[in-house]
Amino acid sequence: MRPRSASASAGETRRLTRGGGAGERGILRTICHACAIFGLALAGAMLVPALVDWSEGYAEWQAFALSAALAGSVSALVAIATRGPREAVGRRAGFLLVTGVWISSSTIAALPIALVLPHLSLAGALFEAMSGLTTTGATSIAGLDRLPPGVLLWRSMLQWFGGIGIVGMVILILPSLRSGGISLFRMESSDRSETLLPRVREFAAALMTAFVVLTLLCAATYAALGMDVFDAVNHAMTTVSTAGFSTHDASFGHYRDDPAMLIAAIVFMIAGALPFVLYIRLFMPQGLVGWRDPQVTLFLALLVGLTLVVAISRRLEEGVPFAQALLSSAFHVVSVTTTTGFAAEDYTLWSHAAVAVFFLATFLGGCGGSTTGGLKTYRLVILFVVVRATLRQMARPHLVQPLRYGGAELAEEQVRIVVIYVFLFVVFLLLGTVALAFLGLDLVTAFTGSLSGIANVGPAFGPVIGPAGNFSRFSDPALLVMTLLMLVGRLEIVTVAILLYPPAWRN
Amino acid sequence: MRPRSASASAGETRRLTRGGGAGERGILRTICHACAIFGLALAGAMLVPALVDWSEGYAEWQAFALSAALAGSVSALVAIATRGPREAVGRRAGFLLVTGVWISSSTIAALPIALVLPHLSLAGALFEAMSGLTTTGATSIAGLDRLPPGVLLWRSMLQWFGGIGIVGMVILILPSLRSGGISLFRMESSDRSETLLPRVREFAAALMTAFVVLTLLCAATYAALGMDVFDAVNHAMTTVSTAGFSTHDASFGHYRDDPAMLIAAIVFMIAGALPFVLYIRLFMPQGLVGWRDPQVTLFLALLVGLTLVVAISRRLEEGVPFAQALLSSAFHVVSVTTTTGFAAEDYTLWSHAAVAVFFLATFLGGCGGSTTGGLKTYRLVILFVVVRATLRQMARPHLVQPLRYGGAELAEEQVRIVVIYVFLFVVFLLLGTVALAFLGLDLVTAFTGSLSGIANVGPAFGPVIGPAGNFSRFSDPALLVMTLLMLVGRLEIVTVAILLYPPAWRN
Repeated sequence: MRPRSASASAGETRRLTRGGGAGERGILRTICHACAIFGLALAGAMLVPALVDWSEGYAEWQAFALSAALAGSVSALVAIATRGPREAVGRRAGFLLVTGVWISSSTIAALPIALVLPHLSLAGALFEAMSGLTTTGATSIAGLDRLPPGVLLWRSMLQWFGGIGIVGMVILILPSLRSGGISLFRMESSDRSETLLPRVREFAAALMTAFVVLTLLCAATYAALGMDVFDAVNHAMTTVSTAGFSTHDASFGHYRDDPAMLIAAIVFMIAGALPFVLYIRLFMPQGLVGWRDPQVTLFLALLVGLTLVVAISRRLEEGVPFAQALLSSAFHVVSVTTTTGFAAEDYTLWSHAAVAVFFLATFLGGCGGSTTGGLKTYRLVILFVVVRATLRQMARPHLVQPLRYGGAELAEEQVRIVVIYVFLFVVFLLLGTVALAFLGLDLVTAFTGSLSGIANVGPAFGPVIGPAGNFSRFSDPALLVMTLLMLVGRLEIVTVAILLYPPAWRN
Repeated sequence: MRPRSASASAGETRRLTRGGGAGERGILRTICHACAIFGLALAGAMLVPALVDWSEGYAEWQAFALSAALAGSVSALVAIATRGPREAVGRRAGFLLVTGVWISSSTIAALPIALVLPHLSLAGALFEAMSGLTTTGATSIAGLDRLPPGVLLWRSMLQWFGGIGIVGMVILILPSLRSGGISLFRMESSDRSETLLPRVREFAAALMTAFVVLTLLCAATYAALGMDVFDAVNHAMTTVSTAGFSTHDASFGHYRDDPAMLIAAIVFMIAGALPFVLYIRLFMPQGLVGWRDPQVTLFLALLVGLTLVVAISRRLEEGVPFAQALLSSAFHVVSVTTTTGFAAEDYTLWSHAAVAVFFLATFLGGCGGSTTGGLKTYRLVILFVVVRATLRQMARPHLVQPLRYGGAELAEEQVRIVVIYVFLFVVFLLLGTVALAFLGLDLVTAFTGSLSGIANVGPAFGPVIGPAGNFSRFSDPALLVMTLLMLVGRLEIVTVAILLYPPAWRN
């Protein structure tokens, strides 16, 4: 028996090795294929701004047509070369795939921007594309008002795609990061999850429909309130995705004296910052029955509380009439907290307390499973649960209670991922600060720029990159650091950390 | 049987209630007694500056004598009134006791400062005393060089007492916070802890001896290098306790051109930032055999790394000769990282990268179980262990390994306390920022002031409270916010959090 068993085991080893090798190659092929498919989609999308520029008589339509041809043909070749049976994608490959798609898409999306704006460096174009797809909304372009419509629309479309991509990624591809979406969905109805969980295709269709409907509603509202159609469409795409690109250098400053417009923006920024599971459930048989999520309560409470602090401090310190202070405070608190980043005024010139609140808000973010960045309120809820449980346990060491989020028990891994997210957020924030400072930026610009990048907010603080400024004065290396920070923040940090830590993958 | 059992249980309830009431009263009595004992000690200590002022012919000796008489008599009365059998002090009472002693001691210590400096507000005097006892080293007094020696010595003595108090507290009273000391000691030799753990009295004696010997060595070195004896004694007390009060407005700027003096300060600041368990073990039979602690390695590596970054960036950006840049960088990196806060130059005027490094260093702190503040390196080690384990587990969900610090396994509660410490650190930091901004301070001053306070560093950033400035321009409310932040940071945050969270104590 012995020789046979030994040879069988040797054969098994060989098979495993070969299988493993083919698996590695297969996964790489699958990832390249996915990047190519997204590249094809982007190439197709470039035809929209090409058409707009062409119909408006701008020669820049050629840049978009050329980019579409280039990106389309290369993507098609890669897609064909990497055809084959679909590989089952595991956790690691999932992280690699998402990171790869985001980087390749940003590179492709930067192509027409670089062609239309030859004065912009390649780093600037890549920064702009990454800022779009990560829904950050920081811009390296000064003089937006003078640009042809095609490139403005392209920037807005990137944010809209990014918004869908983020929610799709969090809900469909990265549930193991438990960053919202399915994991929260499961938590809320842990006992009936089998029957509740629809198939991925239905899920994606519902998400898409919700996103399109929200955007159309937003655009219609903006247009009804007096925005011209082009601006309404652009701002709707960047509002619902809580992203913040505008067609004007003055951002929402164009509409600062129109209360209805500001209120509409507030409503749709909040809509984009709520967990999209909420909208998806509207398509499911059970609807919103039994749906509740403590992070939504905390999120709305934070918005109200911070708005009041800003408004009161402006009333006291600057003497602004309270009603006026309340509206502008609400608009900007919502804009920064949801990581949209629209600015109707330079709020860094307001009272000191207001500025500190905006600084605080830059960390926060909206709900998990939304298009927002930052820490996100579900993580804050979980951390407060941990704080409360630990303090309670220190008082009564023998009373061990499970950690709960809403009604459901939290898994140990879930809590750990939140903890390392927050820790790595601070680590990357400080490393980004040192890197930007090394590239010659002052502490305020470096720190708040790094924060704004990793939290995917957009505007930062200080004279250079505050809400009245932009990133056009950043050097190429500084723009690349910012590009990396936006990517790391967008991919929920842990995704990138796990790719940067090979021992996690060692056999 | 029924009536009897019911009456027995009712009797039991009564007994428990009465016992509980007496216990509560007993604990309160014990706490007041402890505060009074510390008050008596402080009153006795006031005789030293009184004697110095008297022998040097300064009338301010009367302020110290009066304070000593007042504090001494009141403390004696309270001590007598609260005499009685010693109560066993539980966790909660331990936290209350420590917090109470720190507040009452600061108030008593502020008395002679307020009397000697009538122009200083009461808030300013309390701030100064708290900054002393928490070994923060921020000062609200401008014009130190013109002050009588007594009050300068008193400030240094407060920091020295604070240093001993902190190590004693962490090692002897708050081991349940696992902030270093015994807990680390136990970890390192978990198998033989019973035989190794000396009794509290021996422990305290060893700690005291180590502290005195280090201070004497430091003072002798300073004096040998040319400091006059008064300055040598003062600076030794504030160096070893990593605290940072100086007898000059220019702080260590007096000695900026003396490399030997800077090197001596570097050595003794590092000595004060190492875990005091290291020194205490020198008094134990086993000595340092088998002693190792990953946080020490990380701490020293951080000092070397940050020093190099600062020196290189100064060489590149400012063209400072490398040797000179290296020494001044090392001095200030060690000063800020150990939370001492001595400044020989205004490093916030150095290269942008250097300023960002100092900002980063303000968070860090030295080792657990030392006199330093900040996050402390053992917490960083534990967080990195958690990050690594979580990433590894995400890659291989079925491979669950225990978390280890050095060679020993980490308890779940230990990790949780570190996690909530860091989270609450950020929460208090941001709340402190908003509070200071509400009191009219700009964002940089508010944020870095709050950070410097809660990390017990001393100098912050910006023109007001940077290393070249001081807190004399702060309003009284802002000084009180700073006083609270210093206290919260010094008591390891969690102590205060548990007192602020009554549900933890509810039956």
